[in-house]
Amino acid sequence: KLNKQNSYSNRGMTLEEDLNETNLYYRTHNIAVIHKKPIPIQIVNVDYPSRSAAVIKEAYFRQASTTDYNGVWNGKYIDFEAKETRSNSSFPLSNFHEHQIEHMKSVVQQGGITFVILRFATTDEIFLLEGKILFFYWERMMNGGRKSIKKDEIIQNGHQIPYGLHPRIDYIKKIQELNLL
Amino acid sequence: KLNKQNSYSNRGMTLEEDLNETNLYYRTHNIAVIHKKPIPIQIVNVDYPSRSAAVIKEAYFRQASTTDYNGVWNGKYIDFEAKETRSNSSFPLSNFHEHQIEHMKSVVQQGGITFVILRFATTDEIFLLEGKILFFYWERMMNGGRKSIKKDEIIQNGHQIPYGLHPRIDYIKKIQELNLL
Ligand SMILES: [Mg+2]
Ligand SMILES: [Mg+2]
Repeated sequence: KLNKQNSYSNRGMTLEEDLNETNLYYRTHNIAVIHKKPIPIQIVNVDYPSRSAAVIKEAYFRQASTTDYNGVWNGKYIDFEAKETRSNSSFPLSNFHEHQIEHMKSVVQQGGITFVILRFATTDEIFLLEGKILFFYWERMMNGGRKSIKKDEIIQNGHQIPYGLHPRIDYIKKIQELNLL
Repeated sequence: KLNKQNSYSNRGMTLEEDLNETNLYYRTHNIAVIHKKPIPIQIVNVDYPSRSAAVIKEAYFRQASTTDYNGVWNGKYIDFEAKETRSNSSFPLSNFHEHQIEHMKSVVQQGGITFVILRFATTDEIFLLEGKILFFYWERMMNGGRKSIKKDEIIQNGHQIPYGLHPRIDYIKKIQELNLL
């Protein structure tokens, strides 16, 4: 039943590419203004050759302190993280960092909408999981429970998003249906 | 009269440092969740030495397609840019890019709050200028008018923010006073 939804399947695009295309669609059609944040980098050494652009010669990837995507839709603040797994049976919580969860909790406290977009890569299924549900499973882990969310739990408590052509992953439509705020 | 406001003057901190400190204060006190976005970088070459962190060996600065800061306050989406000038008489509009203005207009269209924080470096004065006011002067330039906003116009149509100790630049208080939405 779930596999029926993959009529426009991923065809080798990454989740990030699909979401960037989706966000571009939203911006172009004045539906929402949501961007992926740049990757945080620690710059150590920059070269300034005369007459040409500055070249970063040494830099390091830093751990993100927030989520990957944010913006505004219909007067509401939107903030989410996107993650993929190759597992078929569960989604490992090691994909998230403590400070990302803390950030998402702060967003909820300020009246923003936060969620995660989860992709099961081998079956090419996409789910939206609301922040409060993610927090529940995170707490379960913190209290000594399992370090992942079972796929059954995601099917039960999350919301599958079928692939589309334009936009490819219509998460705003899902948020609208769910009336999250 | 304006100079009286500088009782806690900048003491050599940059506008970015002051705003980062302000945002940290807001997050710590659960007032707002606002971050500076990472600098956009085009990564060309990365080295992966065994047993140590990946090193970016060649990368370039890209032009930002949005503004520097965004987040959520009190259920509202906040989006702004911060700029400094050494001029005493006006604020050059060359500090902004067309796509930043377009981004800010889209934010307004989606019901978000957008503005710029302007600093006159030599007198250490800070002003908040609402998006709609910035758009007005941008259009004036586009229609062949002056390429800057006169300081008198900023005093008239903007809102000075006095330096504080904690937070250093309390722009949320100003937004609250102005009741921007
Ligand atoms: Mg991520
Ligand atoms: Mg900037």
